[in-house]
Amino acid sequence: QSSVNIYGRLNVTLERSKDGSVTTNDLVNNSSRIGFKGVEDLGGGLKAGFQIEHGFNPANGAASSTFWGRQAEVNLSGSFGMIRLGTFTSEAYFATADYVSMHNHDTGTSADRLYNDANGFNGARKVAYRTPTMGGFVAELAVQEANSAGDRGLDLAANYDMGKLHLGAGFSKLGDDKQIAVRALYEMGPVVVGGYVQRDNVLGGNRTNYRLAAQYTMGATELHANVGAASDVKGLPGSSAHQITLGVNQNLSKRTKVYAFYTRVGDDDKLKMYSKGNLSAVAFGVRHNF
Amino acid sequence: QSSVNIYGRLNVTLERSKDGSVTTNDLVNNSSRIGFKGVEDLGGGLKAGFQIEHGFNPANGAASSTFWGRQAEVNLSGSFGMIRLGTFTSEAYFATADYVSMHNHDTGTSADRLYNDANGFNGARKVAYRTPTMGGFVAELAVQEANSAGDRGLDLAANYDMGKLHLGAGFSKLGDDKQIAVRALYEMGPVVVGGYVQRDNVLGGNRTNYRLAAQYTMGATELHANVGAASDVKGLPGSSAHQITLGVNQNLSKRTKVYAFYTRVGDDDKLKMYSKGNLSAVAFGVRHNF
Amino acid sequence: QSSVNIYGRLNVTLERSKDGSVTTNDLVNNSSRIGFKGVEDLGGGLKAGFQIEHGFNPANGAASSTFWGRQAEVNLSGSFGMIRLGTFTSEAYFATADYVSMHNHDTGTSADRLYNDANGFNGARKVAYRTPTMGGFVAELAVQEANSAGDRGLDLAANYDMGKLHLGAGFSKLGDDKQIAVRALYEMGPVVVGGYVQRDNVLGGNRTNYRLAAQYTMGATELHANVGAASDVKGLPGSSAHQITLGVNQNLSKRTKVYAFYTRVGDDDKLKMYSKGNLSAVAFGVRHNF
Repeated sequence: QSSVNIYGRLNVTLERSKDGSVTTNDLVNNSSRIGFKGVEDLGGGLKAGFQIEHGFNPANGAASSTFWGRQAEVNLSGSFGMIRLGTFTSEAYFATADYVSMHNHDTGTSADRLYNDANGFNGARKVAYRTPTMGGFVAELAVQEANSAGDRGLDLAANYDMGKLHLGAGFSKLGDDKQIAVRALYEMGPVVVGGYVQRDNVLGGNRTNYRLAAQYTMGATELHANVGAASDVKGLPGSSAHQITLGVNQNLSKRTKVYAFYTRVGDDDKLKMYSKGNLSAVAFGVRHNF
Repeated sequence: QSSVNIYGRLNVTLERSKDGSVTTNDLVNNSSRIGFKGVEDLGGGLKAGFQIEHGFNPANGAASSTFWGRQAEVNLSGSFGMIRLGTFTSEAYFATADYVSMHNHDTGTSADRLYNDANGFNGARKVAYRTPTMGGFVAELAVQEANSAGDRGLDLAANYDMGKLHLGAGFSKLGDDKQIAVRALYEMGPVVVGGYVQRDNVLGGNRTNYRLAAQYTMGATELHANVGAASDVKGLPGSSAHQITLGVNQNLSKRTKVYAFYTRVGDDDKLKMYSKGNLSAVAFGVRHNF
Repeated sequence: QSSVNIYGRLNVTLERSKDGSVTTNDLVNNSSRIGFKGVEDLGGGLKAGFQIEHGFNPANGAASSTFWGRQAEVNLSGSFGMIRLGTFTSEAYFATADYVSMHNHDTGTSADRLYNDANGFNGARKVAYRTPTMGGFVAELAVQEANSAGDRGLDLAANYDMGKLHLGAGFSKLGDDKQIAVRALYEMGPVVVGGYVQRDNVLGGNRTNYRLAAQYTMGATELHANVGAASDVKGLPGSSAHQITLGVNQNLSKRTKVYAFYTRVGDDDKLKMYSKGNLSAVAFGVRHNF
């Protein structure tokens, strides 16, 4: 009867990392997942859809502690846009930090350590409205059921594609915690450059965080670099940090790549808020989409 | 080689409910699930089949505590009927309470709170025999491995379809706990009426429970009402309860509906056996089968 | 886009068993599982593949404690052989004990109780290299990330098929624990005979373990017998044991069989290392592959 699409990704790296005084050689998961999704055409432009997605760690076979915690959503869409119900990731995050993390989808050890989400990336108990795409512009507002403290999470995102220039913004809030970020990405032939700036009050005071990322493509090979920095949290001297990541991807197909990266989280962070202290890692990996 | 069918349902409601003194606004799961099943034709009328089914909560992405606890079954069938092995739901329940719970498949807050199963809906460690369907009649007997107290669960169900009239009965037993129920449902054009009566000794004494349900269909719209009442458990004065549910379903397709319901569990139940006290809820939902 | 293959097996037995002084009538799982796998052709003889496999118990619906603990692997293969990353079973085991356990795939109560794996069948955090198949010969070496004691698991397997004769060998090691085994299997028309000998130092001293297995096929019916014996562990008098299993399989198709077996683990084993004492079991079962 219905047609269910099975999709997913296995993404593992062999890494040598040093975090504080501990050196590790490790097989590391980079957000591997499997999911099921489908769309039903209800006629008259109306559609019903679902998507459930489950994260797991190929290194040891373990499932995510919340099984379908990556996504568990039912939605209705039409000319009015889309209504989404259930569990799903912050669109404010997708519109900003995730969007410019081109070298490895913001996963694993080289993920952006400095971006803050106002509700701790809790995707549960949401209702969202997404606008139709209007001349390259789309926006989405999600509200989250109030938590035990009575605070209602809020997540707002906007994306605007104007040819080679792609803009985005995100805002999220939970109680007194909030963050806002804007992002731009520009394509210049084989070169793509992007970045975002975030202003947040999540760690107990105001803070500014930015990231710049660049990609250079030569045939099947991609060279990547990105650098980020977060200022001191206001009232917490010594809480700043920076991160630099260099990567090279060799695409074996659209679905499969082998890659390497170096990442370093710099320990201006005397408070060790982002690592145990001067994290660095070298990794070799394979990512296979299905 | 083999063909595996993937199927399931996402069913969530936005609810405002009051149970005792607590008012909640909540995104609620209504028995969402995903399953895998298949049938192999062995020739000569013999077939082998399997079905595994997993419940989850789209509101937070959580899996059922027993992952394949909804169903995990292998079976052999032929002209002799069907032998089933593994984990599966009480057919006595399917033949009675579930059968007349037409408005939302006996799920979620508006599920029948008054029906009792003799073994607490434990579907594990079963062997069952189902007769062939003979002139609209089919019956099934399931026996369950003895529990640690040495008690062996038993579940017996019968269904008889005679045109517009559909009859069913169920009996289940575990140690001293037992229940028997009979059910009838009649189709009169756009109107369907059904009900069951249950007599059980599960809560420490004999009790009688009944349910009446009606459905009126106008095109894609269904109007539903059902009312149930359970008498005092013998020896437990103040243990009676009743439930009333009103619902409206708007079918967007055979697979997808949006709906609303109001349900109320009345607190003659001084012992709060069925709710924390005078539960009532208003809900709006979407159910999508795949 | 991609094509994912869903496969699996439900395998359950009704058993009457006696282990020490305890007699049990039980519905027993025999390594039931479901998995997802796929292969992508990258061109030029190169392929990428993945496989994730999850064990569950149809008797009660429970999932394995490590969800994808049976397998969670991504691999790249070509004329050079195959590189595997992730979680997967010991190939030393597949090449020896599993290979000759023909009556029921070395699962459930009649599984080979005497074979020892040097790392306790821990399949996690592995990197493996498999040679191409060269004139019937294939070998594989897997290394495992060092555990908390600093020990790095190692697993080496070889298989050689020469017409009707099939040879195999396996070696595994973790810290001071190690085992080596050789296996042969010969096909003589309807008769297949096989066996392995294992020498290990896993239980605190050296030990020798062997297994002989025979299969006789008459149409859809298979008769099976196997016998194994393990010597005393050096320095542990009274630690020897033996096992005998008799089985009959009736194949209903290539995918589905019904079967019966008798197995007995003999308690020379005064130390009860292999059972609670003189385990014996009679079982009737059904296995359905999908």
